Amino acid sequence: MLLESLALKFDRPVGLALLDQTQLPHSEVWMSITSLDQMIEAIQSLRVRGAPLIGISACLFLAYQAQINPDPQLLKECYSRLRQARPTAVNLMNNLDQCWVSYQAQDQQPSVLLNEAIKLFQEDQMLSLKMADIGQELIARGSRILTYCNTGSLATAGLGTALGVIKKAHYLEKNIFVYTCETRPLGQGARLTYWELQKDNIPCQLICDNTAATLMQQKKIDLILVGADRITKDNSVANKIGTYSLAVLAKYHQIPFYVVAPSTTFDQKMQLGSDIEIEQRPAKEITQFWNITSAQVYNPGFDVTPPKLITGIVTEQEIFTPH
Amino acid sequence: MLLESLALKFDRPVGLALLDQTQLPHSEVWMSITSLDQMIEAIQSLRVRGAPLIGISACLFLAYQAQINPDPQLLKECYSRLRQARPTAVNLMNNLDQCWVSYQAQDQQPSVLLNEAIKLFQEDQMLSLKMADIGQELIARGSRILTYCNTGSLATAGLGTALGVIKKAHYLEKNIFVYTCETRPLGQGARLTYWELQKDNIPCQLICDNTAATLMQQKKIDLILVGADRITKDNSVANKIGTYSLAVLAKYHQIPFYVVAPSTTFDQKMQLGSDIEIEQRPAKEITQFWNITSAQVYNPGFDVTPPKLITGIVTEQEIFTPH
Repeated sequence: MLLESLALKFDRPVGLALLDQTQLPHSEVWMSITSLDQMIEAIQSLRVRGAPLIGISACLFLAYQAQINPDPQLLKECYSRLRQARPTAVNLMNNLDQCWVSYQAQDQQPSVLLNEAIKLFQEDQMLSLKMADIGQELIARGSRILTYCNTGSLATAGLGTALGVIKKAHYLEKNIFVYTCETRPLGQGARLTYWELQKDNIPCQLICDNTAATLMQQKKIDLILVGADRITKDNSVANKIGTYSLAVLAKYHQIPFYVVAPSTTFDQKMQLGSDIEIEQRPAKEITQFWNITSAQVYNPGFDVTPPKLITGIVTEQEIFTPH
Repeated sequence: MLLESLALKFDRPVGLALLDQTQLPHSEVWMSITSLDQMIEAIQSLRVRGAPLIGISACLFLAYQAQINPDPQLLKECYSRLRQARPTAVNLMNNLDQCWVSYQAQDQQPSVLLNEAIKLFQEDQMLSLKMADIGQELIARGSRILTYCNTGSLATAGLGTALGVIKKAHYLEKNIFVYTCETRPLGQGARLTYWELQKDNIPCQLICDNTAATLMQQKKIDLILVGADRITKDNSVANKIGTYSLAVLAKYHQIPFYVVAPSTTFDQKMQLGSDIEIEQRPAKEITQFWNITSAQVYNPGFDVTPPKLITGIVTEQEIFTPH
């Protein structure tokens, strides 16, 4: 196996396999990805998810396609369609662009695409380790930490972003306790983060998203750590819907609220949080739970947290105050 | 039919029938209630719910029992066990006590229990109408209103509390739009409030609980209306888990936050919000959604909102500022 993580496997010349995250934690089903439509469906249906992992998976698929059929015109179409698969996550566009620029610069040699994708995979693992090292300093012994969505080994090629920091604190035996919000509508916290926490034997409890405020009121939360899908130049953070709510609640209860994200999540081309295009997700993500498929819903996939609500942003280089 | 509402039917001597609210909106199943165990199970499983409706249903069951078997000792046990069926809602205790005191004062005549229960039913309908009349004055034309849980004709014998006010504004053609939060874990907003809003053709959208903050950030909410399960002497409000979260978010976004509750929801014997016993609900209410039945969860049924976060409380007599 050339590349392997909790969520992804890549072998040459066999191809790309992704863990179908929609079936976790009930079943661990690996999908062999062999067509562009299949890859795009996997991204849009959140079978593969997490801003860093989406970017790396897309680049690996492009490299796989270059092995199967190195026709530059075909690869260009593949690159363009992958780039538009999800609008909010910036890594997808940035990573694909990086691979494509190298490929063009090196006479459209197919192997360049694989080399670049492997480089991104390995870099992402390194980024996770550095963020974990830097971020764990925020966590005092015995801390009770609230986290949101999934930001671990199912969202990156490595340890994770926010969840990577939490894992590192646990490895350092800081005696932490974690609350994970279920993260409606798709339950990434309930299904994925809880699964990862259990794999590492980290003491934790699952709560409904609407219960976070009550834990804060009861002074049971010392620190909140979340990830990011995109950070604009003004340090506004686009992340899973519900993040902004936690940031406001943290401010009111005077609880530190940190975002953990590698520099690859920063979008240098976008000035303001309000410029971010927010993906509207299908109604059935909400309605199928309640068997009310005809209901009118508002289901944005992300929200934007302004810098004034963020205590600090942890990157692979530093922790900085965004406002 | 001696008594009839959207959620309850009572006939003499046939007995009590309750609409099984856990099966809404998919199926409208009426349960004939013939045993104490069945009545208690219906309360604890939220087949009948809403603080006013629980109280009235319990009193009607006691009256039904008195018809079937007027043995005072048996009725006393029935009264005591019903009284403990759910700890947070105050109407249950207050209404049963009122029936029991009259029954004792009038030589334990079985018919007293039915007369008292009918009186409570009719009073509750009147309370709804008065609250709706008073509360609708808060609603300007074109208002976009956020509501939570279910506080309508499935929670009371009449029009409802918060949802009653909303319905009244719609009847007055105020051109309102309603956002209903799904209300995890049991989805009273998604299943019940959405169903009631549709029955009345009130324009509305369903959102995940974690999306309310984003609507507030986007200035799409003019007013928040919620109900209450118990209000203490310091005007702290116990209501469905998630209410406190909305109150904090409303404060931050400077959006009026009103509680609608009849005087029967005020607990004159309890001084502080912190004195309220909060019911812990079974883990499976959360875990069964995600097929993760072994997960550790924290699942309080209610939270407590302090008076300083409440713009006003609407009763059948007035709107007052609780702080």
